[in-house]
Amino acid sequence: MTKLEQLRQLMVQHDIHTYIITKMDPHQSEYSHPRYNEVQFISGFSGSAGKIVVTANEAGLWTDSRYYLQANNELASGFTLHKEGEPDTIDFMQYAANVTKEEDNIGFCGESLSAVAVKKLATRKKKTCQIKYDKNLINEIWKDRPIFSRENIFVYDERYCGETHKAKVAAVREQMAKKNAPMYVISSLDDIAWLFNIRSIGSIGAFNFLAYAVVSEEETMLFMDTTSDDKEATDRLQKQEIKISPYNHVYDYIDESSGAVALSPGRSSYSLFSHLKGRKIVELAHDITATLKARKNSKEKENMRLANERDGVSFVRLIMWLKSAVSIGNVTEYDVTKKLEELRGQDENYMNPSFEPICGYGANGAIVHYKVSQKTAAHLQPKGFVLVDAGANYIEGTTDITRTIALGPLTEEMRRNYTAVLKANIALETLQFRHGAMGVHIDSIARSQMWKEGLHYGHGTGHGIGHLLNVHEGPQSVSEKLVNVVLEEDMLISNEPGVYIEGQYGIRLETSLFITESLTNVHGKFLKFENIVFVPFERKAIVRNMLTQQEIAWINDYHQKVYKKLAPHLSKVEAAWLKDATEAI
Amino acid sequence: MTKLEQLRQLMVQHDIHTYIITKMDPHQSEYSHPRYNEVQFISGFSGSAGKIVVTANEAGLWTDSRYYLQANNELASGFTLHKEGEPDTIDFMQYAANVTKEEDNIGFCGESLSAVAVKKLATRKKKTCQIKYDKNLINEIWKDRPIFSRENIFVYDERYCGETHKAKVAAVREQMAKKNAPMYVISSLDDIAWLFNIRSIGSIGAFNFLAYAVVSEEETMLFMDTTSDDKEATDRLQKQEIKISPYNHVYDYIDESSGAVALSPGRSSYSLFSHLKGRKIVELAHDITATLKARKNSKEKENMRLANERDGVSFVRLIMWLKSAVSIGNVTEYDVTKKLEELRGQDENYMNPSFEPICGYGANGAIVHYKVSQKTAAHLQPKGFVLVDAGANYIEGTTDITRTIALGPLTEEMRRNYTAVLKANIALETLQFRHGAMGVHIDSIARSQMWKEGLHYGHGTGHGIGHLLNVHEGPQSVSEKLVNVVLEEDMLISNEPGVYIEGQYGIRLETSLFITESLTNVHGKFLKFENIVFVPFERKAIVRNMLTQQEIAWINDYHQKVYKKLAPHLSKVEAAWLKDATEAI
Repeated sequence: MTKLEQLRQLMVQHDIHTYIITKMDPHQSEYSHPRYNEVQFISGFSGSAGKIVVTANEAGLWTDSRYYLQANNELASGFTLHKEGEPDTIDFMQYAANVTKEEDNIGFCGESLSAVAVKKLATRKKKTCQIKYDKNLINEIWKDRPIFSRENIFVYDERYCGETHKAKVAAVREQMAKKNAPMYVISSLDDIAWLFNIRSIGSIGAFNFLAYAVVSEEETMLFMDTTSDDKEATDRLQKQEIKISPYNHVYDYIDESSGAVALSPGRSSYSLFSHLKGRKIVELAHDITATLKARKNSKEKENMRLANERDGVSFVRLIMWLKSAVSIGNVTEYDVTKKLEELRGQDENYMNPSFEPICGYGANGAIVHYKVSQKTAAHLQPKGFVLVDAGANYIEGTTDITRTIALGPLTEEMRRNYTAVLKANIALETLQFRHGAMGVHIDSIARSQMWKEGLHYGHGTGHGIGHLLNVHEGPQSVSEKLVNVVLEEDMLISNEPGVYIEGQYGIRLETSLFITESLTNVHGKFLKFENIVFVPFERKAIVRNMLTQQEIAWINDYHQKVYKKLAPHLSKVEAAWLKDATEAI
Repeated sequence: MTKLEQLRQLMVQHDIHTYIITKMDPHQSEYSHPRYNEVQFISGFSGSAGKIVVTANEAGLWTDSRYYLQANNELASGFTLHKEGEPDTIDFMQYAANVTKEEDNIGFCGESLSAVAVKKLATRKKKTCQIKYDKNLINEIWKDRPIFSRENIFVYDERYCGETHKAKVAAVREQMAKKNAPMYVISSLDDIAWLFNIRSIGSIGAFNFLAYAVVSEEETMLFMDTTSDDKEATDRLQKQEIKISPYNHVYDYIDESSGAVALSPGRSSYSLFSHLKGRKIVELAHDITATLKARKNSKEKENMRLANERDGVSFVRLIMWLKSAVSIGNVTEYDVTKKLEELRGQDENYMNPSFEPICGYGANGAIVHYKVSQKTAAHLQPKGFVLVDAGANYIEGTTDITRTIALGPLTEEMRRNYTAVLKANIALETLQFRHGAMGVHIDSIARSQMWKEGLHYGHGTGHGIGHLLNVHEGPQSVSEKLVNVVLEEDMLISNEPGVYIEGQYGIRLETSLFITESLTNVHGKFLKFENIVFVPFERKAIVRNMLTQQEIAWINDYHQKVYKKLAPHLSKVEAAWLKDATEAI
């Protein structure tokens, strides 16, 4: 019997008409442990984005254009691909609602969907359909389900994170009081890492653990399974009057309390949310911790600048190596990512990548989330563009940098498009804006430079960046999405316009910008940006007559800063190379 | 006994703890008949924006900063002013929710609040409080309540509106079918005027009537009280198989039908919405008619261009007159509005103002919605700026134009600020943008020009404009508000950045832009703007070195077009003046 047949048998036994499967962990994490990848288990599909809906007759996988091909190759028999992003494709939740009659039941694991997602399901169904969420059917089939494992946790030193746990909790409690919430439950793992000043380094990212946190007026609870390897950290936490309990005790703990509970339904599982039925819930649009941690303190800012200086050195070395390696040897995209890892590894403070590096040569550069693999990696040739988008964790903090590098001759169109992207990048960085503006308001400041040339990028212009946490951190963003979050001083965002010519090449230029005060007058407070990424742009890809005098001056000034910042860390040969690369245009 | 005391007595009789009063008509009209101004009746406050909440001990008026002073002067004894826009002021609905206990009742006239507004009240109250909306208590006190009266309605000729009622209804039915709604109820008066191609000219505006419309699969109903003066129009409507019934028959008509009903809860009264309880309601974010009428057909576009040409002539004559009159005589702001009315009146196709004209000299120009009155009008002096924002209805269509005119010497700051506003205006007009963008996305294209100089305007950059309908027409807008409406080809928006220096002067420059196709390529469809307003800018207020070469070229080109467009309609003397006013900078 196939897995799908086994699942359908269980659905009949549990009187479930429609069953929904995701690869989400109970914390709505962007990157979840293989333990939670029920999508891959049941369907064979290994892409990073996928949702499944199963009925007696149908089994569908929903994924986006990045994975159409892969899904067709990998999907087990009996599954149909639903192409997200195509006009006729119905959203998977809507589909589940549509195929389920009023009298029938929809099932899913309540930990695999957020409370917000399920709320939408209910709205779509008008008369709320019967929902069964307390039975994970996949669990009964998946006998060798991977066990969650992780490296030890450590306490992140105050000289890096700049604020004690105690001070953070006090700030959280202040917000709780304002919202009349004597208790606050946090599911979001990077928020927990931030609040307790703990980290755990995985193969990627810096907070690879499972935990819940509960802050009440009296105590601070960390629900996390720990081992003797964690002892140093747990000792230090306990000295700060943090109570540590096993991971799965969180529900019992909540049960023993009373009064209103604050939580973010978008970041809490439906199971957790439903467990609070009957309690007064203070629904947070964003976690209190998320809003607090988005504004970096001066120590965090200082350290993020240092981390970027370190990574700037590696990036420059990579570009220099690439330019020569490609003219002599047989370099693949995979080799480039290995080389970058090697170069970064020379820095004693380097920890790991903050996300899987993207290296796309030629046509692969046009695939926005291109995934390099050793088997399929393209060979770089001494012409056209290679796009490298890579981020690192250093003990000081996290980086996220993209440069598009010319490996040889470029066409005129390539240069014009590169220049348009550069203009878009400069337009955002040099913007002065009034406090009160949101990301959705300033997205077009970059994007309109592309529009002017009849160009477009299908992704946001920027995202928040965590401090040795999540490289994609909310609540702020700079995108066309109607996200109701004001951009505040000391927030950090990426600035990454691009353009993608299908089948040919892709261009993206990405820096990281702190928001700082510019001036305050009778018209309000005005903010500006501080770029903390120092890696040269590609001079030979710039069409000078597309630039204004201000843009030319900006580029020359930036390149001078790049040289000044990085040269002291480079060898003579490298510094000489950088000198050339940062010559005035 | 005061009116307030009478009201409180009635509240006790009807077991109502909290009573809400607005000045809204049952159609959520922007400008409502005095019949509906219950706010003024009960409180004495005559401002255009006001809401009242009354309890046994408190009576509050909510209004915005435009009216703080006026409210203090006008408010009857017993009323407290709640200043909207100040940080500590609670929204009036939230206030009503806060002061009402679970067991108490909130009352209001169900026709004076939209279904959306009441829905929010319910949400704010968590446990839905008891709502009594079917008794209008003011009615029982207001013995000499004005009776609604209007001019006759007329059928708006197809050579102006460009599309038959039949074709419009067919398009509406097509959308109804897509939404599975066999019946559609329309409350919005300008939508009804558009759908039936009828108009009624009032002192201001072009659709001064009360009506509901119902479109079903079989018939088209117009619920409107008519008199013999309307006979020509009603005969023509009936020939088009439109059934006309008395205004207050709409509820009975709906009762006799069955099946799903579509309506826009934001534009429908709570009474109407509640009347449908038990029926399946298809809630429209925007009226189907609003979405259809927002995209002007080619006849409408042609006629809107003509109306603006006519109004351009009057505006130019006004500016010319102003410049000389101010140096010799004793001209007030009120005189300016009278003069404009006189100049427009010389055009046989002129009908009436599309809104009450704004003429603000000096410090009054800094009051965004400054209302000119004969008594309080300021005297113009031969120095500084006067801001004129005025719109007209011609038989061809509607205009909305703002110019800021130098009456004599300007300070350097005035000129810099004028130039910033002009740059903002040009930035939006010359934008090329990708189809899919909304007003919230492109608002900053204009606004960022102000931000650059540390300046700001507290209003939107643009609004839709109706065709001999509402000068403020939805659903599109260009503002910081998170309005989820894509800007489509053939929509018309105003472009009106400004800056306001309190106590000194105001600058606003407003044109009207059609959205047209620019190009389509592999990256999508790109749109651009066509400005249909031709009135010169103030050359002496422009600081040339703040402009780019492109901006200078744009201004000179625009001024040439202004001259070419208007000169044929002007006298020799006027044309010579315009020639000077449009010289290259």
